[in-house]
Amino acid sequence: MTFSAADHAAMARALTLARRGLETTTPNPRVGCVIVKNGQIIGEGWHQRAGEAHAEVLALRQAGDAASGATAFVTLEPCSHHGRTPPCADALITAGISRVVAAMSDPNPVVAGRGLERLRANGIETACGLLEAEARELNIGFISRMTRGRPWVRLKAASSIDGKTALHNGVSQWITGAAARQDGHRWRARACAILTGIGTVKADDPQLTVRDVPCTRQPQRVLIDAKLEIAPEARILQGAPLLIATAEVDPVKSAWLRDAGHRLLVLPNASGKVDLPRLMTELGQLGFNEIHVEAGLKLNGSLLREGCVDELLLYLAPMLIGDNAQGIFNLAELTQLDKAIRLDIQDIRRIGDDFRVLARTRQT
Amino acid sequence: MTFSAADHAAMARALTLARRGLETTTPNPRVGCVIVKNGQIIGEGWHQRAGEAHAEVLALRQAGDAASGATAFVTLEPCSHHGRTPPCADALITAGISRVVAAMSDPNPVVAGRGLERLRANGIETACGLLEAEARELNIGFISRMTRGRPWVRLKAASSIDGKTALHNGVSQWITGAAARQDGHRWRARACAILTGIGTVKADDPQLTVRDVPCTRQPQRVLIDAKLEIAPEARILQGAPLLIATAEVDPVKSAWLRDAGHRLLVLPNASGKVDLPRLMTELGQLGFNEIHVEAGLKLNGSLLREGCVDELLLYLAPMLIGDNAQGIFNLAELTQLDKAIRLDIQDIRRIGDDFRVLARTRQT
Repeated sequence: MTFSAADHAAMARALTLARRGLETTTPNPRVGCVIVKNGQIIGEGWHQRAGEAHAEVLALRQAGDAASGATAFVTLEPCSHHGRTPPCADALITAGISRVVAAMSDPNPVVAGRGLERLRANGIETACGLLEAEARELNIGFISRMTRGRPWVRLKAASSIDGKTALHNGVSQWITGAAARQDGHRWRARACAILTGIGTVKADDPQLTVRDVPCTRQPQRVLIDAKLEIAPEARILQGAPLLIATAEVDPVKSAWLRDAGHRLLVLPNASGKVDLPRLMTELGQLGFNEIHVEAGLKLNGSLLREGCVDELLLYLAPMLIGDNAQGIFNLAELTQLDKAIRLDIQDIRRIGDDFRVLARTRQT
Repeated sequence: MTFSAADHAAMARALTLARRGLETTTPNPRVGCVIVKNGQIIGEGWHQRAGEAHAEVLALRQAGDAASGATAFVTLEPCSHHGRTPPCADALITAGISRVVAAMSDPNPVVAGRGLERLRANGIETACGLLEAEARELNIGFISRMTRGRPWVRLKAASSIDGKTALHNGVSQWITGAAARQDGHRWRARACAILTGIGTVKADDPQLTVRDVPCTRQPQRVLIDAKLEIAPEARILQGAPLLIATAEVDPVKSAWLRDAGHRLLVLPNASGKVDLPRLMTELGQLGFNEIHVEAGLKLNGSLLREGCVDELLLYLAPMLIGDNAQGIFNLAELTQLDKAIRLDIQDIRRIGDDFRVLARTRQT
């Protein structure tokens, strides 16, 4: 399948539109659509919020009767099933679209290809795979949930260049500069949920909200607190209800949290801690695509050891703290280097005086 | 002072020539010279080795009689004193050069400006400061020695992205990949001396030579060994004589090393260790411009604490080892973040699968 330069330009525009839904489409994917006729864009749309119109429908609405005989570029294969809204494939057929180009097929292997098939059965020319890599990146969390049944987990950490996240006495504010902290909030904003541990709540008393950048909806906050040690005055208990993952099964101990509107997931593992892989499956079932972790070295280490980290978002500050301080990951002592967890670096860039590394854990 | 585009091009060429001496001019600076007449380069030269001709003399030789009335571009102010070779200022005067442009003045504050002054006194038009930043970078070590009386100290380390240079059991080969190790040898090659500590010799038994890249002369190897614990079979004792800095004053203990041709600098401090700042002064007096350090966390920490590190050359490998391993710097425990050692990042780039950070300690 080859695509023209004009095809590329139209799909690039559709991706730009899709990105406008970065912070709001959860649990749905971010999708953009462009309708082109005689080399002109006659309709554009992007999905904004679950329950509201899909990108294709908005673009068709803008194109009106001119859609007949036009080409639709959509960043994700049009749906063929009745969800909260009618199938987009049908809307494209009804509008008389003659060609549909999708960046990628539906990531759910069970329904992949159905939308395009339905279009083809109705005499529409279809193509798939234009700017697919970009489209997959944009919905990395949604794809993860559809294909693996769990969210994409991005772990954020900020350390000195020698790998220290806090002094021995716990002081950690601020290792990185304002620009890096703001960039961190930008990543928080795109996540469906922000996850931390009771250790961090005790040490830093964070709010875990998006504040340093504009944000139209706050991500769900998730706390891992195996023994329900959280204090009533913790700032994280203010504002929107919390999702608390715990290993504590005593109903009396949890009553006050439930009464205050917080939701508890009781997921003990054999050693009396929270079963992290199970938690991820639960979060996937709750519709969270991207999870943003901001925790301390213990929970960071546990998540990593138990295979629950997909991506590392690491801010490195140009300072040296020395070995007598807290590191990023608490891991078991290694005796062989080939047992170290390998990463693939996606991106390195300066953010203010600091620099940021985005790396992915290598799938084994 | 403004310079034309042609002036810039000529000086850029002179800097390119100067860089050819990167590994060989020690203890002299790297210097290049271009002679231009009627818009044409009529002579080029660069300093290759101490005791051999200076850049200006070589360029004049190539220009011959045509040098009369020409402009000379030189990356460092021409010398006005008799050293191992006659003063270059005189050679330029004799050749009838009518204009001299220098990238920077002599870094030695006592003689700075003398060369240009001598030229002016002989009716030659002079200018200084063209591409000065580039010229200063090229001779950062020579400038350090002339202005501070000590070499420029570049500390190389290779760690995992979470700041670990070795496993708890000492295993460190190899954290970074072949490309990063080769790049490290390129930095070794430009240094006048490579410095390590007895801890690293015991742990890794390094040769501390340049092997992974072509090199016309091996840098002097320097070992810090306070108690003269080095074993006769250590690989570092093979090949060229070693310079050993020690706090051990017992002449009997050191006799075998001196007999084997190695040179000892006995520099004890009050706590019976090697006085590192004094060692740096000594190395400066011995004519070493750039020192390349490859040591372990203890010596790295001591050098840093005692203000003996100017630059950090850090290779970060895309792997996570966890907190239960060796860090980069052994430093005293901090209680306040503003006591951390601040760096300025000069450059970040990928080297193979790893990435490299070049940062400088902030002068306080």
